[in-house]
Amino acid sequence: MQRIVQKFGGTSVGSISKIKKVCELIKKEFENGNQVVVVSSAMSGETNKLVDLAENFDVTNNKTEYDMILSTGEQISIALISMALKEIGIHAKPLLGWQVPIIGSKEQTKAKINKIDNKLLLKIINNNEIPIIAGFQGVDDDNNIVTLGRGGSDTSAVAIAAAISADRCDIYTDVDGIYTCDPRMVSKAKKLERISYEEMLEFASLGAKVLQTRSVEMAMRYNVTVQVLSSQTGKKGTFLTKEDKKMENELVSGIAYTKDEANITLINILDKPGVAAKIFTPLSESNINVDMIVQTGSENGKNINFTYTVSRKDLKQAILIMEENKNNIGFERLITNDSLAKISIIGLGMRTHTGVANKMFSALASEKINIHVISTSEIKISVLINEELIKKALNVLHTTFGLDSY
Amino acid sequence: MQRIVQKFGGTSVGSISKIKKVCELIKKEFENGNQVVVVSSAMSGETNKLVDLAENFDVTNNKTEYDMILSTGEQISIALISMALKEIGIHAKPLLGWQVPIIGSKEQTKAKINKIDNKLLLKIINNNEIPIIAGFQGVDDDNNIVTLGRGGSDTSAVAIAAAISADRCDIYTDVDGIYTCDPRMVSKAKKLERISYEEMLEFASLGAKVLQTRSVEMAMRYNVTVQVLSSQTGKKGTFLTKEDKKMENELVSGIAYTKDEANITLINILDKPGVAAKIFTPLSESNINVDMIVQTGSENGKNINFTYTVSRKDLKQAILIMEENKNNIGFERLITNDSLAKISIIGLGMRTHTGVANKMFSALASEKINIHVISTSEIKISVLINEELIKKALNVLHTTFGLDSY
Repeated sequence: MQRIVQKFGGTSVGSISKIKKVCELIKKEFENGNQVVVVSSAMSGETNKLVDLAENFDVTNNKTEYDMILSTGEQISIALISMALKEIGIHAKPLLGWQVPIIGSKEQTKAKINKIDNKLLLKIINNNEIPIIAGFQGVDDDNNIVTLGRGGSDTSAVAIAAAISADRCDIYTDVDGIYTCDPRMVSKAKKLERISYEEMLEFASLGAKVLQTRSVEMAMRYNVTVQVLSSQTGKKGTFLTKEDKKMENELVSGIAYTKDEANITLINILDKPGVAAKIFTPLSESNINVDMIVQTGSENGKNINFTYTVSRKDLKQAILIMEENKNNIGFERLITNDSLAKISIIGLGMRTHTGVANKMFSALASEKINIHVISTSEIKISVLINEELIKKALNVLHTTFGLDSY
Repeated sequence: MQRIVQKFGGTSVGSISKIKKVCELIKKEFENGNQVVVVSSAMSGETNKLVDLAENFDVTNNKTEYDMILSTGEQISIALISMALKEIGIHAKPLLGWQVPIIGSKEQTKAKINKIDNKLLLKIINNNEIPIIAGFQGVDDDNNIVTLGRGGSDTSAVAIAAAISADRCDIYTDVDGIYTCDPRMVSKAKKLERISYEEMLEFASLGAKVLQTRSVEMAMRYNVTVQVLSSQTGKKGTFLTKEDKKMENELVSGIAYTKDEANITLINILDKPGVAAKIFTPLSESNINVDMIVQTGSENGKNINFTYTVSRKDLKQAILIMEENKNNIGFERLITNDSLAKISIIGLGMRTHTGVANKMFSALASEKINIHVISTSEIKISVLINEELIKKALNVLHTTFGLDSY
């Protein structure tokens, strides 16, 4: 017997017939003799409808109300799942955040989970019933309903798995796992059997939308084994676990990319302490997210050049802010490039192996792909290249790092 | 300063613009220096949509789920009202049944209110804020959401008024009060300034849909002053109170009617003990509601005739049941009439005045209106007549009992 949390996203429960299909997946695990806890999102489209309704008013001053409205989406979906399960002879018990209870912080609309009381949940599963828990919601110390922000249902599922010491947390989505690279870009991309939390965090932060960064952090913190799999097929997916021996042998586990990057280079800034703050403070005040940052010395040794990347949609505003602060920052002129993409190779093996970066740069050079900016972390190397070369770059790197035959 | 509960029905909060209008009514009472508590139904149409969704499954075995789904309607409307109030500068606090808490019985889908904890409500109103409470819902001792059944929001409002010793419970509807008779039938019908709980109970049980019987019983039990008024005009409506001197002078307060009545007469039954049970047990087992019952002796003194009325929609099934039980009941034959209407005069004065019935029968006779069945209660006399004569009968009675110039 295993204890399993099954989490279903909005598209998996988007209609009565889809809910019935999902219930077959639940029934299968249950009839295999496992203890099962289900976590569900709202039916797809519902949350957006509720947001539209709430946004008839100023949400900033009405977060209690906003969370009260949004939480109805999951309230409906879990009741429907519970009904559908009973119809096929399985005892289920729908539970809202406050009924579990899942105690959230007071940060309404983006609360953190502070504590999950597992007593009721354990009582239900030990009674051979299945709790169906509303994802994305909790209750704060003042009995207000709070929601956890976008992707919060994944976080709910992982936190519940931790609270009841589940053997596994299965996240059902519309993809069947984590791939070495986007299969639409690299035809030889393979599904990974396993990936470490650290690597998955890098994937998630690079916009591979399968799992929310928060839920991966939560899984890593509490050492929850997470499986990402398809609700269409129910076939074995990709497991997220802490690193093991096998993983260390892999130099690179996967390659991620983001399009729609742009960069700004400020030329000839007099190198004085505090210049970075002068550049980035006004950007952050305008909620512009800066990603890669590179500082290079200029020829004369006194001046420097500063390059950073922003989302392409933010480029126009970022240029405006730079021009407004031109005297304060003290740069001579700026140049921009608005057709860039970022490619990142990710792998635990980089921590212990040298030469990975060189191998990457050589492979790109062999295809005459120019690198604009480089940034590295312990288990990731990212490069900025021209967007039109992205497919070519992904494929050469996929082959170079032995992923074609993974 | 008065303490006032304001209850708004689904049509009053059926859109964002209607909600904003309702908030003006709330603001007016609040800015007059009153303490205000608001109770709201779901936006019109929403509850039916939720019922349709839930009825994809067998509701009988899924009452927890059904109530969980249905309660989302009010959850959304109270949050929107709260947001709209803040927009016009009034501090509001939306509260669900479990947050108040309103403790309901375990009779899911038709729970009774067992207890309302007034501590939080008093704290909020003493803090110069307005609690906006979800009608129609409560929570049982096991933390399950329960709903109160159709018209439950009126009952919520009256119970909350009782719990906080409100001076008044204003029920806003789409009519502007209780009338001496249906104005569509009697052009001289007048709006009543006051009506006693007892009289209103008779009106409500006769299908005058302004207030649910349960909410009137609750008001009577806890002596809550209820006002029925229009959310369109906000003008003074009709007050429900316990009877006073003034009321006793009125012989008849109003005239109610129901169409779609039918009757069945069983001819020549041998008069033995238990015959009534033999007739009515199988009807009640088929959920057929029997209203007026009259037993008359037959000529020979040994046999009796039995007449009773049912809803016209139930007539066919009732005849079938009688035929099936013909031998057991022991009647000779049955005759039916499926085009009847019931007219009732209602008034506290009947308790102390004699001759009211005679006056009614004479008035109907003067218009050549034949009476099929009569039944009386302490403050009501009902007669069954042919349906096509209903308008004529209502008007002559309205004049006879002095209501034209009320």
